[in-house]
Amino acid sequence: MNKKTLDLAGIYPPIPTPFDSDGKIATLALTENLRRWNQYQLRGYAVLGSNGELVLLSEQERLRVLEIARDAIPLDKLMIAGTGCQSTEQTVTLTKKAGAIGADAALVVSPSYYRGLMTKDALRAHFHAVADASSIPIIIYNIPSCTGIDLDAETIAAIAEHENIIGIKDSGGNVIKMAEIGRLTGPDFQVLAGSASFLLPALSVGAVGGILALANIAPAQCLAIRQSFLDQEWEQARQLQMRMIPPNTAVTRRWGVPAVKAALDMLGMYGGPARPPLPLLSNETKQELRVILRQAGILHEGKPQDDNEDR
Amino acid sequence: MNKKTLDLAGIYPPIPTPFDSDGKIATLALTENLRRWNQYQLRGYAVLGSNGELVLLSEQERLRVLEIARDAIPLDKLMIAGTGCQSTEQTVTLTKKAGAIGADAALVVSPSYYRGLMTKDALRAHFHAVADASSIPIIIYNIPSCTGIDLDAETIAAIAEHENIIGIKDSGGNVIKMAEIGRLTGPDFQVLAGSASFLLPALSVGAVGGILALANIAPAQCLAIRQSFLDQEWEQARQLQMRMIPPNTAVTRRWGVPAVKAALDMLGMYGGPARPPLPLLSNETKQELRVILRQAGILHEGKPQDDNEDR
Amino acid sequence: MNKKTLDLAGIYPPIPTPFDSDGKIATLALTENLRRWNQYQLRGYAVLGSNGELVLLSEQERLRVLEIARDAIPLDKLMIAGTGCQSTEQTVTLTKKAGAIGADAALVVSPSYYRGLMTKDALRAHFHAVADASSIPIIIYNIPSCTGIDLDAETIAAIAEHENIIGIKDSGGNVIKMAEIGRLTGPDFQVLAGSASFLLPALSVGAVGGILALANIAPAQCLAIRQSFLDQEWEQARQLQMRMIPPNTAVTRRWGVPAVKAALDMLGMYGGPARPPLPLLSNETKQELRVILRQAGILHEGKPQDDNEDR
Amino acid sequence: MNKKTLDLAGIYPPIPTPFDSDGKIATLALTENLRRWNQYQLRGYAVLGSNGELVLLSEQERLRVLEIARDAIPLDKLMIAGTGCQSTEQTVTLTKKAGAIGADAALVVSPSYYRGLMTKDALRAHFHAVADASSIPIIIYNIPSCTGIDLDAETIAAIAEHENIIGIKDSGGNVIKMAEIGRLTGPDFQVLAGSASFLLPALSVGAVGGILALANIAPAQCLAIRQSFLDQEWEQARQLQMRMIPPNTAVTRRWGVPAVKAALDMLGMYGGPARPPLPLLSNETKQELRVILRQAGILHEGKPQDDNEDR
Repeated sequence: MNKKTLDLAGIYPPIPTPFDSDGKIATLALTENLRRWNQYQLRGYAVLGSNGELVLLSEQERLRVLEIARDAIPLDKLMIAGTGCQSTEQTVTLTKKAGAIGADAALVVSPSYYRGLMTKDALRAHFHAVADASSIPIIIYNIPSCTGIDLDAETIAAIAEHENIIGIKDSGGNVIKMAEIGRLTGPDFQVLAGSASFLLPALSVGAVGGILALANIAPAQCLAIRQSFLDQEWEQARQLQMRMIPPNTAVTRRWGVPAVKAALDMLGMYGGPARPPLPLLSNETKQELRVILRQAGILHEGKPQDDNEDR
Repeated sequence: MNKKTLDLAGIYPPIPTPFDSDGKIATLALTENLRRWNQYQLRGYAVLGSNGELVLLSEQERLRVLEIARDAIPLDKLMIAGTGCQSTEQTVTLTKKAGAIGADAALVVSPSYYRGLMTKDALRAHFHAVADASSIPIIIYNIPSCTGIDLDAETIAAIAEHENIIGIKDSGGNVIKMAEIGRLTGPDFQVLAGSASFLLPALSVGAVGGILALANIAPAQCLAIRQSFLDQEWEQARQLQMRMIPPNTAVTRRWGVPAVKAALDMLGMYGGPARPPLPLLSNETKQELRVILRQAGILHEGKPQDDNEDR
Repeated sequence: MNKKTLDLAGIYPPIPTPFDSDGKIATLALTENLRRWNQYQLRGYAVLGSNGELVLLSEQERLRVLEIARDAIPLDKLMIAGTGCQSTEQTVTLTKKAGAIGADAALVVSPSYYRGLMTKDALRAHFHAVADASSIPIIIYNIPSCTGIDLDAETIAAIAEHENIIGIKDSGGNVIKMAEIGRLTGPDFQVLAGSASFLLPALSVGAVGGILALANIAPAQCLAIRQSFLDQEWEQARQLQMRMIPPNTAVTRRWGVPAVKAALDMLGMYGGPARPPLPLLSNETKQELRVILRQAGILHEGKPQDDNEDR
Repeated sequence: MNKKTLDLAGIYPPIPTPFDSDGKIATLALTENLRRWNQYQLRGYAVLGSNGELVLLSEQERLRVLEIARDAIPLDKLMIAGTGCQSTEQTVTLTKKAGAIGADAALVVSPSYYRGLMTKDALRAHFHAVADASSIPIIIYNIPSCTGIDLDAETIAAIAEHENIIGIKDSGGNVIKMAEIGRLTGPDFQVLAGSASFLLPALSVGAVGGILALANIAPAQCLAIRQSFLDQEWEQARQLQMRMIPPNTAVTRRWGVPAVKAALDMLGMYGGPARPPLPLLSNETKQELRVILRQAGILHEGKPQDDNEDR
């Protein structure tokens, strides 16, 4: 089977799940944010990823977010649903429901709690059981910064043998491994960069795109890096890549989901609070973030978009 | 307040959750296993810990296990309920329900998914929010082999400032840190060893007992190590400690929960299957496990208890 | 001062130190190998790096290797001498002697034995003391696979403040960090990739070249990757980069210095034995290596160059 | 052969190498320090260990320190000489010279620079080559905090098969592993704790003593922990063990060799400066150290021993 039945090439924001001041899902804000992002040439969205706070939502909330998002996402854009749970059975169940709601693919994070027992064979069995049961294609999700486990190229290749497992989002940042994955799995298997800091290096070793926290707040810039690469406008791609590293670090490794949300607030979209134990950003950190966004050309001074940020 | 209102000193098995061949909770087996363990001078039980496969159960299943266990645990033994979830709110909810069901204390594992943001302050806020909301005392659960995070002594001491947080189960095995915890928190804060391999070393630097996977299959031996220590029968304690290291390694680091369950089967209790992605033990591994248990004096040849193991 | 007084841009093999069958330095082989490499458009050589077995040589041997190499290296090519020792004083002494022998720059590995005390301030003081005393420019050498320490971008930037510290060889493979170094230090500070597996990704975020074990056995291919990049022949660069990953892994992470030497033997140059505790390659491993080199187009069947390999 | 031909049981300070204000070896200070330590019932001394700054000394200096120390150490106390270098040949040479000078045993740290290639087989070959060539017994030295490598129990057992390899100093602090070593190697193989923080736990799983940085500044207390253990005065041992943790942390993990030396100065012995890149202690740190030593009962207020410390 050709795994490229579903062509993943492109840029995706892993969208945050907005909460209101009572901690409930802010459904209108979710729809409104998507309306804004829909104006860009994004390939689609990852819903319920790490930035979507999947692990902090009840099952009911998860389904609700998928339903609202699907309604707001045009059919020509992909909805990739995060469905990975610690148990195989729970993952199967959530993946099936996501498919029924209309997700185009499922993003399945590696189970990590019993990490000492998660051998290549155990992980292969887990992912294959999910892929067997799923009507939609599966994308492996490797995110060592959250799971504490970094899937190696051999394990990924073993998992990728299943015809319904069509790609990987790799957030580890090891471009050597990305190239190695390409070599071990063949050209059909699609690699997506998991962080904007290494988008261009990843493209340079064969990745087809990226699911990028930064694409929530700088979709145009992320798209431009990839387009310049495709156009062989190499120097332009490189300069933009370099410019995006400080804001990307800010909304990932340094301050994470709360910073993505704060940045959305600053940009006049809806960010709102993250759920505890995710921390609140201090005012000092917000101010530092604002400076970083301005220096990167993501936020512009004096724009009305600033009005909204102190909600 | 005196944190020793609830005296934790003693030995606890972190009991496995038994499943039948359809993967449903085997309620009678749970009751029957507890009847067997109740014959020992155990201080109580940890229910829904890592060995209880907490992260692989639905919320409904979790409450069902607590209810059945409470019915089968005499009131003079403690029921410690594992209630730690990734979100603060979910942890609060499950802890309250556990208290309502009759748990004597809650064992709260450190949230780990957003590990990069789990600073001392964030963890402190999480545990204090749970402790504020809970009617039963809280025990911190540090298990780096599952979470990939090893709480340091300073963080533990900061969390321990709350009067309703009375102790810690530390599975990390760093006895220097255990002693440091004792020094930083004062004598009221109770440290429990999280693995039988370092029970005696832990007692030697101030631990008051242990929650030990090995106590599921060798309760008498685990109790004897502690009793010999209390009786200052030092050499006896040491020899028994050394003898328990191979079987403990077998049911923890090497083969984990599936091996605890297989060993219960070999001993004529109910083990049964673990839930995927936890792997099945191969027949070779089972045979190796059997040899280890015999050499350690936990399993005896030709006993009728062997009959049951191939169910 | 302009740190580009010495322009490092280009490709360098970190040449191995050849030993004869008695374990003595094979001086003629060293000269002969350099004669072969001199036919390529390499920018120069790193002598006494990790591949040069610096840490396994006596001081007398180190100076001898530098002298022989300098004689055999044309003046239009750079000789970068590895001079990093555990003590500051020893490093100063060896750096001065290397300068007197005619090295163009010194490659100073971060001291690592007292790693717990090697704070940013301690490392900065070490490198600045060496840079103060040295008549030749200093290149920082970050190689976590040997030192067990990965200098972070902030530490590197602090060290780079000294005007006589002009660049870094970074073998860590974290291209995000490479870009961050560029951002923190300014355009004068020159970054060299430390392994061929990420040469193209490194160039894409601002590196000016590389010191590459693979360049010992595949100089033409390493040069071609960089040239294609400079010519904006992007697809060609990418394909060659991908093709070089398996042989590079073979002579670095998998089998290291002994494999570089075995490959040189296979290519009709002089490899010879590495010094213990570096292991001998088994015949099976040599055969596997040969296959990898052939598949990558580095070794060609039936060439007379094969005759020499069983010396 | 009985490995207990040389009985290692007891306590050893790993003595620092004193330098004068010009950075030369302070030979009289070395002799005088040993005269002070000789008053205690120590089993002997480790000379040229990590605290002896072995890696910062020239070969000539190493031999000089061994000669002076041997002259000042009574024949009924053991002199264990640190002789581990990165190369097998250098280690053999230094070990032979140490034996000729009169060392009773050699402490050989695991080579670590080519860590990726230091398999069990490679390390076994290295240690066995040294043991074959040496007239004095060999003690394995495992110190992950310096080498970045933690030898596992299986590797240690494989190395220990050689009859001239009689024991290990393990500074890793994993008491489970210590017990495992005992089980895998048999009772003849002697385990020495490598840090005072886990002396009692180590004794409790079979260690015969310790080479303890703290024994430089608190020999009486270190001896008393072991003696109480031998006398089965368990509670006394435990209390003293707990009391020694803060000062031990101060002179090991927190501030290392410079703190051992500063503490010696405070106690009226000779500490003096450490060699760069080891840092100087700030006055604030010295003051903090002084408080820790006083609280632990190692330093007493108003004693003339304080006069000397600001030399």
